[in-house]
Amino acid sequence: MRSHLCGLVDESLIGQTVTLCGWADVARNLGGVCFIDLRDHEGIVQVVAEPSDAAGNAEVLAVAEQVGYEDCLRVTGTVRRRHSVNAKIRTGQVEVVAERIEVLNKADPLPFHHHENPGEDIRLRYRYLDLRSPDMQRKMRTRTKLVAALRRWLDARGFQDIETPILTKATPEGARDFLVPARMHPGEFYALPQSPQLFKQILMMAGFDRYYQIARCFRDEALRADRQLEFTQLDMEFAWVSERDVQDTVEAMMREVFREVAGVELADPFPRMTYAEAMRRYGSDKPDLRIALELVDVAELVKDCGFAVFAGPASEAGGRVAALRIPGGASLSRKQIDEYAAHAAKFGAKGLAWAKIGEGGEVSSPIQKFFDAAAFSALLAHVGAGNGDIVFFGAGRYSTVSEFMGAVRLKAGRDFGLVEEGWRPLWITDFPMFEWDEEAQRYVALHHPFTAPAVDDEADLRANAATAVSRGYDMVLNGNEIGGGSIRIHRASMQSAVFELLGIGREEAELKFGFLLEALRYGAPPHGGIAFGIDRIAALMAGTDSIRDVIAFPKTTSAQCLMTGAPSPIPDEQLAEVHVQVRPQG
Amino acid sequence: MRSHLCGLVDESLIGQTVTLCGWADVARNLGGVCFIDLRDHEGIVQVVAEPSDAAGNAEVLAVAEQVGYEDCLRVTGTVRRRHSVNAKIRTGQVEVVAERIEVLNKADPLPFHHHENPGEDIRLRYRYLDLRSPDMQRKMRTRTKLVAALRRWLDARGFQDIETPILTKATPEGARDFLVPARMHPGEFYALPQSPQLFKQILMMAGFDRYYQIARCFRDEALRADRQLEFTQLDMEFAWVSERDVQDTVEAMMREVFREVAGVELADPFPRMTYAEAMRRYGSDKPDLRIALELVDVAELVKDCGFAVFAGPASEAGGRVAALRIPGGASLSRKQIDEYAAHAAKFGAKGLAWAKIGEGGEVSSPIQKFFDAAAFSALLAHVGAGNGDIVFFGAGRYSTVSEFMGAVRLKAGRDFGLVEEGWRPLWITDFPMFEWDEEAQRYVALHHPFTAPAVDDEADLRANAATAVSRGYDMVLNGNEIGGGSIRIHRASMQSAVFELLGIGREEAELKFGFLLEALRYGAPPHGGIAFGIDRIAALMAGTDSIRDVIAFPKTTSAQCLMTGAPSPIPDEQLAEVHVQVRPQG
Repeated sequence: MRSHLCGLVDESLIGQTVTLCGWADVARNLGGVCFIDLRDHEGIVQVVAEPSDAAGNAEVLAVAEQVGYEDCLRVTGTVRRRHSVNAKIRTGQVEVVAERIEVLNKADPLPFHHHENPGEDIRLRYRYLDLRSPDMQRKMRTRTKLVAALRRWLDARGFQDIETPILTKATPEGARDFLVPARMHPGEFYALPQSPQLFKQILMMAGFDRYYQIARCFRDEALRADRQLEFTQLDMEFAWVSERDVQDTVEAMMREVFREVAGVELADPFPRMTYAEAMRRYGSDKPDLRIALELVDVAELVKDCGFAVFAGPASEAGGRVAALRIPGGASLSRKQIDEYAAHAAKFGAKGLAWAKIGEGGEVSSPIQKFFDAAAFSALLAHVGAGNGDIVFFGAGRYSTVSEFMGAVRLKAGRDFGLVEEGWRPLWITDFPMFEWDEEAQRYVALHHPFTAPAVDDEADLRANAATAVSRGYDMVLNGNEIGGGSIRIHRASMQSAVFELLGIGREEAELKFGFLLEALRYGAPPHGGIAFGIDRIAALMAGTDSIRDVIAFPKTTSAQCLMTGAPSPIPDEQLAEVHVQVRPQG
Repeated sequence: MRSHLCGLVDESLIGQTVTLCGWADVARNLGGVCFIDLRDHEGIVQVVAEPSDAAGNAEVLAVAEQVGYEDCLRVTGTVRRRHSVNAKIRTGQVEVVAERIEVLNKADPLPFHHHENPGEDIRLRYRYLDLRSPDMQRKMRTRTKLVAALRRWLDARGFQDIETPILTKATPEGARDFLVPARMHPGEFYALPQSPQLFKQILMMAGFDRYYQIARCFRDEALRADRQLEFTQLDMEFAWVSERDVQDTVEAMMREVFREVAGVELADPFPRMTYAEAMRRYGSDKPDLRIALELVDVAELVKDCGFAVFAGPASEAGGRVAALRIPGGASLSRKQIDEYAAHAAKFGAKGLAWAKIGEGGEVSSPIQKFFDAAAFSALLAHVGAGNGDIVFFGAGRYSTVSEFMGAVRLKAGRDFGLVEEGWRPLWITDFPMFEWDEEAQRYVALHHPFTAPAVDDEADLRANAATAVSRGYDMVLNGNEIGGGSIRIHRASMQSAVFELLGIGREEAELKFGFLLEALRYGAPPHGGIAFGIDRIAALMAGTDSIRDVIAFPKTTSAQCLMTGAPSPIPDEQLAEVHVQVRPQG
């Protein structure tokens, strides 16, 4: 239907006849000459319909005059040099003088044009119009390139792409499963996989050595801005490996793929940090290293002060008192300081103490009165506070303080323009095996229940569960956990011990994970792997905050597709076929 | 953990120390020497543990003596030339003299060993053991190679891999949807896609030009031997194209991929055949061209005979009388002929007439009496029947006769060894737009309701619906429809007309396909595409009849996963969260 692509018409074609297909991006009539910006996925070229003595051209002009936004056109014409060069577009040196214009499909008046931004709901409702914009085309193309580059890298190294089932067994492990009633088995249900975790482990037991899959995963969770009901991960698993085999391999992969797709050089090697160090220095297990600010522990300096809020946690095992110096932060108003306190409160803070040092060295702080002058000076000196700075203090349980002070650090980094340019990957390792869940009064797995502990012996693990370290690892980039993995448990006895420590009884374990326990008994090899969040990595590469910009048909935070109208009511007869009914409300 | 792969140890390593990981395929003790066949995904190498004066080796021998089937081992040893060469395996020139054997994971006594075939249910129950067999590894590897080759081809040509949703809107079009209750929308449901059909069309309207996806699709249909609840297709769509653009592109793709993955040269170009010709000559819209037998129309020769079963259909519009000559078929016994009749009956035949010509030329036939001798001879001569042949006759409605005679043709081809070696692709084109459904007393779409008719004008289509030809096409290979596609309707008015002809009222169309009709109004470009059945193509390439051999974790014909036990009952509290309940039986 076409001889060339709109966005690729250039000076080499001057004098030639071309046939182009595309959309009318803009059409305007200037002094009896019609100009149409004809757009395809490669870009835009200017089409001109001029008045002329020839009857043919008069016809062309008549057609051109009727062209509206987003009409589908097929244009045949001659390429010529343009009088007024448009340096902003690739084709800006040339234009196409139309000899024939066919309107292949006339567009109705548009609800909006991609040159506007009508708000996300309208964009999602008419997603096809939104996606036509060059900016969305670029973002979606980045995702395609990312996935293709990953596959190419993996295919070349013998990783085997294997599909695992979407209709599978419900195995609750944290998030809620999506359920699918089974027509052939009344009262029974399939579940959509939260990840291919168990299948990929089984694949290692099935002799596959190196596996990957760009896998769709499903979690029926409350949707935050950066979550979707369904998401995509690069899922990988390796047989006969230790941590470093996995880490070194995927680190090299990421370096190459970032270079190829985004022109970005990532550090070689990635820095490595234990979970404990990350929490201590950054108050986060996914620290954004682009922000240089660090938390400073000050328990030693405040444990004898008169301020019980500090002195208590400073003296207790499991307590923490941490300070964060923000250069230039003395400029914060009282109202702005309150905003920081409110932000910290969202992450569990009961309060946020502070001390300002004015440009002349004068200190103002609501907690100064609890210290003698020398001690307070020593405290500020310890954190390196100088004129013009503010210091925030957090005190309480170690994990709570770390979390809210980490959040304060991120906010300060953004507010004060302290986020450096660049790409800062790192590995986080040595995660705790278990976290104690106060509410449930039991251990929960920090990664997942299939993660191997660093110790080989079950008795050892049982005896030291509270302090046990796992063989899990996360890849972090600019404050995002972009990948998480672990060496897995490969012996049935260890897996049973971990289930037990997690409060999963023998019967429950058998019911939910019986096939895994059974498979582990028939010569399961040592194995481990990792999974990367494709949506997030694509968004980072495309330079957008929203993963919805790199998903063709995303759902809203209320779990709807505004274009198709999913979900929707289903006739009761159809529900009867699969043996369910809608529950009466109330 | 390892320095080399078992299956790749060769003469170049003689004298070197290697560390291998794998499974004990076989272990045996011959005169105080232990031989272990150590297996990984690349193959098998022989490990030897010998008695020796060195204390170390005595220990190795002691470990080796305890090794059982499928134990996971790590072996360090020296490669040496083997005394008795095993020409059957790649590593057959060498063996590894063990210096250290670690049992990484001891296997329980196995339910079966992959050297046996314990029946498919047991294989599926312990799928990980089944998949370890070199034969299953080879089949699964073929699938991986197929998909990787397709992707490579498409990526290199600018096709953009785009993911479409799995949780989407119910749009019944033939097969049953799988339903997923929506937690955030009580009483509403998502549906799993039967194919990405509408999304890929929308992508063309969204400006993506060339799309592909290796897409998971879902159909809740009765499972036949070659069907799965979920299956995988290579889904493709092109903007601004006609039939030949699509066909020529994917034909070239298939030629290259078959060459690369299976070493097979497919015809260039593929033969092309209209639907009408295929039905006439082969009684099938997916003819297996490896079988040379063809149906012969004999209505002209029987329309005046005394046999009403023939004379009726021979004279009626919409009737057919067809003959199939099977060379050497006179050897069929009466019982075997009855089997053919029974086979034909499964495809709608009310009876199957026949005539045998003995080796001496004597004719025997239950219908001979209805003809005068000359007419019957002329009839047999017309179909080319000679000594030793049998001729089967079918009479009745055109479509019914075609179908059952096509089935008889396939059976005869197999029974008489008339299936030639090789790969016979072809295109089937010019499908009828509609089929008349007698039961429902309305038209149904032969492809799907989005397929464009060959005519551009709605009035023309309405006036000639019964004989209208569509712009659909199928790719057929050795009797399998491996791909099906069409040019789509790209104007809203034509789409509405087709919905109407299919008995889909305006309101129903709006409810189910409103977003499509709307999108068509905003400058939808002409577009078309195709989808290929990956499971079937992989099975063909791997040389297996069952697609279950190229799916890692398939379901049974009763829609169960025997390994995980899916589907399974779900606690009522969990169902309450998604606002459904199991329907009372009865």
